[in-house]
Amino acid sequence: MTHSTESTQEREAYYQRLASHDVAPLWTVFRQLLTPTPKPRAVPHHWRWATLRPLLDEALRLVPIEEAERRVLVLENPRLKGESAITSTLYAGLQIIGAGETARAHRHTANALRFVLEGEGAFTAVNGERAPMQRGDFIITPVWTWHDHGNQGSAPVVWLDGLDLPAAQALAAIFFEPFQEVQQPPAVPEDDSRWRWGQGLRPTFESAPGLYSPIRRYPYLIARESLARLAATTKGSPYDGIMLQYMNPLNGGPAMPTIDAFLQWLPPRASLTSHRHTGSTVYCAVEGRGILEVDGIEYQWEPNDVMVVPSWAPHRHRNPHSEPAILFSFTDAPLLRPFGLYREEEVSG
Amino acid sequence: MTHSTESTQEREAYYQRLASHDVAPLWTVFRQLLTPTPKPRAVPHHWRWATLRPLLDEALRLVPIEEAERRVLVLENPRLKGESAITSTLYAGLQIIGAGETARAHRHTANALRFVLEGEGAFTAVNGERAPMQRGDFIITPVWTWHDHGNQGSAPVVWLDGLDLPAAQALAAIFFEPFQEVQQPPAVPEDDSRWRWGQGLRPTFESAPGLYSPIRRYPYLIARESLARLAATTKGSPYDGIMLQYMNPLNGGPAMPTIDAFLQWLPPRASLTSHRHTGSTVYCAVEGRGILEVDGIEYQWEPNDVMVVPSWAPHRHRNPHSEPAILFSFTDAPLLRPFGLYREEEVSG
Amino acid sequence: MTHSTESTQEREAYYQRLASHDVAPLWTVFRQLLTPTPKPRAVPHHWRWATLRPLLDEALRLVPIEEAERRVLVLENPRLKGESAITSTLYAGLQIIGAGETARAHRHTANALRFVLEGEGAFTAVNGERAPMQRGDFIITPVWTWHDHGNQGSAPVVWLDGLDLPAAQALAAIFFEPFQEVQQPPAVPEDDSRWRWGQGLRPTFESAPGLYSPIRRYPYLIARESLARLAATTKGSPYDGIMLQYMNPLNGGPAMPTIDAFLQWLPPRASLTSHRHTGSTVYCAVEGRGILEVDGIEYQWEPNDVMVVPSWAPHRHRNPHSEPAILFSFTDAPLLRPFGLYREEEVSG
Amino acid sequence: MTHSTESTQEREAYYQRLASHDVAPLWTVFRQLLTPTPKPRAVPHHWRWATLRPLLDEALRLVPIEEAERRVLVLENPRLKGESAITSTLYAGLQIIGAGETARAHRHTANALRFVLEGEGAFTAVNGERAPMQRGDFIITPVWTWHDHGNQGSAPVVWLDGLDLPAAQALAAIFFEPFQEVQQPPAVPEDDSRWRWGQGLRPTFESAPGLYSPIRRYPYLIARESLARLAATTKGSPYDGIMLQYMNPLNGGPAMPTIDAFLQWLPPRASLTSHRHTGSTVYCAVEGRGILEVDGIEYQWEPNDVMVVPSWAPHRHRNPHSEPAILFSFTDAPLLRPFGLYREEEVSG
Repeated sequence: MTHSTESTQEREAYYQRLASHDVAPLWTVFRQLLTPTPKPRAVPHHWRWATLRPLLDEALRLVPIEEAERRVLVLENPRLKGESAITSTLYAGLQIIGAGETARAHRHTANALRFVLEGEGAFTAVNGERAPMQRGDFIITPVWTWHDHGNQGSAPVVWLDGLDLPAAQALAAIFFEPFQEVQQPPAVPEDDSRWRWGQGLRPTFESAPGLYSPIRRYPYLIARESLARLAATTKGSPYDGIMLQYMNPLNGGPAMPTIDAFLQWLPPRASLTSHRHTGSTVYCAVEGRGILEVDGIEYQWEPNDVMVVPSWAPHRHRNPHSEPAILFSFTDAPLLRPFGLYREEEVSG
Repeated sequence: MTHSTESTQEREAYYQRLASHDVAPLWTVFRQLLTPTPKPRAVPHHWRWATLRPLLDEALRLVPIEEAERRVLVLENPRLKGESAITSTLYAGLQIIGAGETARAHRHTANALRFVLEGEGAFTAVNGERAPMQRGDFIITPVWTWHDHGNQGSAPVVWLDGLDLPAAQALAAIFFEPFQEVQQPPAVPEDDSRWRWGQGLRPTFESAPGLYSPIRRYPYLIARESLARLAATTKGSPYDGIMLQYMNPLNGGPAMPTIDAFLQWLPPRASLTSHRHTGSTVYCAVEGRGILEVDGIEYQWEPNDVMVVPSWAPHRHRNPHSEPAILFSFTDAPLLRPFGLYREEEVSG
Repeated sequence: MTHSTESTQEREAYYQRLASHDVAPLWTVFRQLLTPTPKPRAVPHHWRWATLRPLLDEALRLVPIEEAERRVLVLENPRLKGESAITSTLYAGLQIIGAGETARAHRHTANALRFVLEGEGAFTAVNGERAPMQRGDFIITPVWTWHDHGNQGSAPVVWLDGLDLPAAQALAAIFFEPFQEVQQPPAVPEDDSRWRWGQGLRPTFESAPGLYSPIRRYPYLIARESLARLAATTKGSPYDGIMLQYMNPLNGGPAMPTIDAFLQWLPPRASLTSHRHTGSTVYCAVEGRGILEVDGIEYQWEPNDVMVVPSWAPHRHRNPHSEPAILFSFTDAPLLRPFGLYREEEVSG
Repeated sequence: MTHSTESTQEREAYYQRLASHDVAPLWTVFRQLLTPTPKPRAVPHHWRWATLRPLLDEALRLVPIEEAERRVLVLENPRLKGESAITSTLYAGLQIIGAGETARAHRHTANALRFVLEGEGAFTAVNGERAPMQRGDFIITPVWTWHDHGNQGSAPVVWLDGLDLPAAQALAAIFFEPFQEVQQPPAVPEDDSRWRWGQGLRPTFESAPGLYSPIRRYPYLIARESLARLAATTKGSPYDGIMLQYMNPLNGGPAMPTIDAFLQWLPPRASLTSHRHTGSTVYCAVEGRGILEVDGIEYQWEPNDVMVVPSWAPHRHRNPHSEPAILFSFTDAPLLRPFGLYREEEVSG
């Protein structure tokens, strides 16, 4: 629809008056706001371990742990520079902790996960329980739990951090509190929670957290063995192959309230089907090599590489090699599901 | 901690190299990201009906409904200019529909509420059911429901729109679809859902929506009468006086999955206690006059005024007059609660 | 399979030895225990108001209320004589209360419902709230709530009592406690709970009971009007016609945890389809006349008649008349559903 | 209250007339029906393995498996003779299966558990998955799952069966169906479900049963190790010592919808506190020797002994020996909890 010059001028004057009263016309932005399908601000991206690993060593040299609180390189989405965000809801970073160092104890309302990439001898302490950190282990420090990290080994340890920081910011719900000491004293035996809650049994004489999994550590050893056993008898999902969710054994849901995490096995020579869904996903390669195709672009990944797939972007997995390939991933889908905002569909072609 | 010039230069060079690889140091922004308490981007604000009402008449004159899809003045938070947002999660606007006009049928994943401010003879149609719009009525058009509006009266009708648009954008989960016709044909009698679901009864022969209230319209007549009856025997909440939630009768929760809405009665001479909570709130005055104090600033409101209180801002209500004062409000608290992010505390002094 | 005399004798001796050690062979009773479909102990039955009403007057004359605690004629299933049971889980009785009488206050873990059949001026008080009793009203006194009844009218009042007593006995979970006085003093206005919880609204400043509906009384006036409105536009269920559940507005479930209750409208000339389901049902006629066919036997009912349909018995409804017919009913289905024991199927022929 | 002879005679005549109309006075039985605390029909009892084991061998000799469907000695409560019930809701029996025998495949709505007491080489197949049966293993065959048993070893195998049969009968909800063949063919690897669901992980590509645990077998090896670890750092419950529930990892509830089962460790020299609760409990001793005191009577138990504690009976545990004592138990508490009927209290003295 066209307007006369006069009416256009009248409108412009009107719009300026509106702005001075802190109101704005909806009709000029309606189509940008209400798009037929999601238009996320984040774009797909691939970070290579080969590139990042040396940068971590530099950080180790340049920045003392006492100054840094956490020595992390944040993986920033190219379209979200300066926002400390890999998507509009998720944060990811690579953390390095030197031999003998301690990353001091604190807590915050943001949920955090750790996926161990390199090194031996570190631990994460959560509410008084130390979880040993072995390569491939998945460890959670959920909302408002005290946590610190230590490295009792003789070499640096590196892991992937995943948090819901941008979502917690958008919800204006971030609280943070330092612990009164640098480290939490151990209150229970190491890995205690796995024996209490992680075997299909539960103690009757104590209550469990309601919001998140009572299990602190999900060992790679067990998750990988489960994948291998399942792979022997099933093809799993057409989109994801053999995929296991890290589960909260008290409700069958995700280990943390806002973040769902998975370990996934792509069989040798697998060429899976393309799909898309709401919710964004961060992948971290664990074993083998594979190809993640997002929006028509191929990312050839190797162990410890990180990739991000924004909401609704079509993507598919391939493993052209003769060895199985294993991916860790986490998503913000739990932020969408309670509100009916999760959708998924196959993408043909 | 201070650094030598040399080390500062070395770090700067390092940070620039990081940026070129789409990574960033966490330690330089840690304290801004993880604040002791929420630091919302939105600020408190007050929009006066006396100011906005004439601007709506101008919109009616300047912008044909066919062009506008919805003729709405968006209430933009002064700190979120250009974002079509009253807080980082909520959208509010004033919509005007002229006599005989139709606001065409569509649906979207954003949830929307309507609170009627002025006029007679309009309706909102939701999935084939028309709900008449009387002053003070609360009407919902939840996630992905078809809806259109019409004005069969002889004068304009104005209402407040409340949506979760900024949240749905942050979650990258917006879908939109126009209906194949301008208006939905009526499929059931007017106000049918109130007789099916709104009387403490439910039909056994049909299933209800799982995510949101099956009731389309909550009449002001009934909500106000309930308030008046409760006010005769109780003081209600120390912070909010007599307050009723618009409830989903199938789960006792909010009427829509992401937005909770309330009608609240401040007794004559009431001077309530200050509190703060996570989640942001939009108030719309209905009857009487009162004072909303936010972060130490007093907003003296009159009917149809709109105010916003950001997350964690201390606020309190007063009604210095001899008549009861009534406020409508809506919040994003349902977006916080499932994740353990809702907190509330009294603020002394 | 036949056995030699010798082996039969050996077995008999063995069985007797078993009995002396409080053990018994499973194999001799296996087929009686594990039947292909349910074999309830209860049988279908029909109690006529015309027969029972005079017996109630006799009770009024013969038994002082002080002696009786409750003046009730228990409807005993012909196969469950002496068990105070209409089925293996449900109890039903007709209660009469004379003008000016009080049925004293007590509480018990058994859930109880009242459906008013005759008279004016009585009330049921539940946890301090009096609910007026009009013909057709449905009133609940759920698990462990204090309750008493009074008749402030000038003539006797009669209602149907429905309880889960036999189930509570089988579960060995009956507790009973007399109130310290004969009557509870009124703590809130009459019918208060309907204004607090029964209009699609809920007070934000008080918590509700978790287990049962916060509404004490569901007026017949409203339930009947809802039925009539629905009947104008829908046929409802093929088995039950237009049927409304008395709902707990906090969870969309039954008003009481163990008993589900309904009001049902059979349109003029309706001849519905036969079905069967687990769970037993007690019907009480309210308006019109109709035919309930159970296991091939026709029960022609008139207002205030009571009928019972045991679990899994095929049954169907007919209304051969030109006026609508209305039935109240209650079932023990909530005792079955949480355990996956509820089944329903159409019965052809 | 006394009555004149005349009135007594009039009442008797009235009561007889009532009976002929299938009604009965409530007031004559009110106090028996509504007791201050539960009066279960079942009584406490103790069955000794030393007595029962030889009787099982006789059954093995006397009754061919083909004739018996299941070769079980039912533990009948002394007060419930002829009812195949250990309490008014629970059934317990000892099952023996000879070397090479098969207990044929069927399914029923009653839930069943197996706790292995003696022997090697048997399996329980549930919906196509074989679970090996080792001493102390807990195995479930929940509502309407196909199941059969086989003994591939060289000696008889004995286990405890626990079912909710009396409850399912009272609810008139028993269905039974034989499998089309004697045995189910294996559909998945042995113990498959433990790798799929029992490690804090879940496959994303398949749905789980909603009502019961997807884990078929809970090995004694793991449960005992968990108990031993917990016992090293905690005293557990004052009533039950270190006690683990066999959990449904999809909802944190009991493994089966109607029956909750536990393994419990009484430390050396433990003398626990007396308590009582609604719900009845069947105990089966596993290791060590101990004393269960019920209603003031001491039962001195040894491995494989079975004891029953009816609802609300005060009971306490002692282990006067220097070795830990271990008890398996199951209860009907899940039948009570959804209805607010579960109560528990300490009993002093």
